[in-house]
Amino acid sequence: MTATRHVDLPSPYVLRRGGQLFGARLAYETWGELSAARDNAVLILTGLSPGAHAASCAQDPTPGWWEAMVGPGRAIDTRRHFVICVNSLGSCKGSTGAASIDPATGQPYRLSFPELTLEDVAASSKHVLDALGITHLRALIGPSMGGMTTLAFAVLFPGFAANLVLISTAPHSLPFATAIRSVQREAIRRDPAWKNGDYSADAWPENGFRIARKLGMVTYRSPQEWRSRFGRKRVNTPDPRPFEREFEVEAYLDAHADRFVGSFDPNSYLYLSRAMDWFDLADHGGAVDIALAKTQAKRALVIGVTTDILFPIEQQREIAEGLRHAGAIVEYHALPSIQGHDSFLVDFERFAPPVGDFLNSL
Amino acid sequence: MTATRHVDLPSPYVLRRGGQLFGARLAYETWGELSAARDNAVLILTGLSPGAHAASCAQDPTPGWWEAMVGPGRAIDTRRHFVICVNSLGSCKGSTGAASIDPATGQPYRLSFPELTLEDVAASSKHVLDALGITHLRALIGPSMGGMTTLAFAVLFPGFAANLVLISTAPHSLPFATAIRSVQREAIRRDPAWKNGDYSADAWPENGFRIARKLGMVTYRSPQEWRSRFGRKRVNTPDPRPFEREFEVEAYLDAHADRFVGSFDPNSYLYLSRAMDWFDLADHGGAVDIALAKTQAKRALVIGVTTDILFPIEQQREIAEGLRHAGAIVEYHALPSIQGHDSFLVDFERFAPPVGDFLNSL
Repeated sequence: MTATRHVDLPSPYVLRRGGQLFGARLAYETWGELSAARDNAVLILTGLSPGAHAASCAQDPTPGWWEAMVGPGRAIDTRRHFVICVNSLGSCKGSTGAASIDPATGQPYRLSFPELTLEDVAASSKHVLDALGITHLRALIGPSMGGMTTLAFAVLFPGFAANLVLISTAPHSLPFATAIRSVQREAIRRDPAWKNGDYSADAWPENGFRIARKLGMVTYRSPQEWRSRFGRKRVNTPDPRPFEREFEVEAYLDAHADRFVGSFDPNSYLYLSRAMDWFDLADHGGAVDIALAKTQAKRALVIGVTTDILFPIEQQREIAEGLRHAGAIVEYHALPSIQGHDSFLVDFERFAPPVGDFLNSL
Repeated sequence: MTATRHVDLPSPYVLRRGGQLFGARLAYETWGELSAARDNAVLILTGLSPGAHAASCAQDPTPGWWEAMVGPGRAIDTRRHFVICVNSLGSCKGSTGAASIDPATGQPYRLSFPELTLEDVAASSKHVLDALGITHLRALIGPSMGGMTTLAFAVLFPGFAANLVLISTAPHSLPFATAIRSVQREAIRRDPAWKNGDYSADAWPENGFRIARKLGMVTYRSPQEWRSRFGRKRVNTPDPRPFEREFEVEAYLDAHADRFVGSFDPNSYLYLSRAMDWFDLADHGGAVDIALAKTQAKRALVIGVTTDILFPIEQQREIAEGLRHAGAIVEYHALPSIQGHDSFLVDFERFAPPVGDFLNSL
């Protein structure tokens, strides 16, 4: 049983780079109750891979991707706030993306899906709020790619969200992150099973996608965590085939790849991955600081992690300082979590208090 | 015209893990003159990919892989020292490796090449010295994987080299480095053209090898270097195919992959890459410090780079402290080079002085 609902986007829905979608829709979930004054809405925009199911609920008791953070009495308290989470446009968890059927052909879009930007992901999410009758947000929350989308939303709809929560994110990708993502995309594209995007449902480019996912995990966690967690420990039963796994860190990567491959559409991954590399907040006015000033944000919570190699802490500091220069009241945390970029998905002891305190103070 | 010479290994040549090679040989080059007292020999053991051609010479004026460091008047001064560089056993630059012909079958070894360790690379290199009539080394120099091989050599032949130069290396791989190398090997193995190692000479697993090389480059340099060098600069003429390169950092990776693929045998890469992950100096006595004490090193120069993510600076410090505890006189440099692990191949301004001073003081 699913708690997912859908909102139809205007048809055609025109994207920033000129493409159009007909009959597109977005999947979303909500928790809690919208107040009579409609003033307690909190929107969560997600990282690359999660869907709208951020937390469990009566209709769908499956744990959500941010289960420990969202719920009654939790940091994102569903007794206080009306919480909404949207599956990004271009993803494959209920929203229209490259794996969706193009009504013009009756076939999946695949690479005929139009060029997608994070501004499109942000602007389309606003239609969910419109459909729910929400005219302003108590807070807009975005971790990782969702933080980039949050920045895009804030600059596209100034003042709509007076309070921003930006977690382990960046105003644009640095070349190290772009290099990693470029190699991930190339691993998918060079898999013969990719077939220029025209893979069949029963023959996905799994080899390339495995490499992409493993490379992702290498950058989502931190060398420090793995050093203390795995060291040089061997697996109990190594795979006897030559050059197969022997070390625990390899088994860990295998387990992550096994879970991910088959659960996310590779073309959708390509579109969202590229959208992250394309995104540059400075496109909105010529410089990051100018764009941040445009958001009219009143307050912001900016959190980063010192062991993050994908969205290094300097990028969070840049956002925090830019918002401060623009006159916002900014709370900035450089957390010493050991789990790197993914810390917001695991180190709840460190992440829950500042997020909860910030939201409850609004 | 080549300056490469060869030494035949004993036949059969028994490897540490039990395999045997018949008619195996090693390629090497030398520069300078061995003194009458045979006391000025300096051996260079290489990283994963270079061959024995460390520097140009009269017979082969092609620049070597460490041209700026090796030569008359250079840091590794060929007027003072008799310099030898050996192509690693298992490599494909003239020494016997997986791409060599197995005399038993008349076919390339491919995966029938026996399991290879860095101890084998070290021990086999000693036969080059034996053939040259060298009974002790003035210095043993190893950067990167070559530093691991140097440690293996030093513990297998205590006192043979009283003076060690260890550059950007480690007593063993940390799980981050193993994860990277594991993904590199998997990218090769999952390329359908790999064919369990039985690829033909005109159909190498180039797609997987490209990914492996690019992933290598991501870890050989540093995010800081790329940030200042590339930023978010675009290429002038982007490839119009979907998801192809747009950013300069992507073109840089392409250029590196283009140069490497076709010039190094993928199976040989697998063998040497795995040997690095297998290597653990602590295997020689139970702990790194015990093994370092076994080397009987008198003096050591240990150099690392603070931006190295593959062989982090802590690992050089560990080696330096261990050698000091064992009674060696150790000079330790944590260089602030911005080029990461590869700094020893490019930042000669920082690397040449300490190496030159150390060698000239012997």
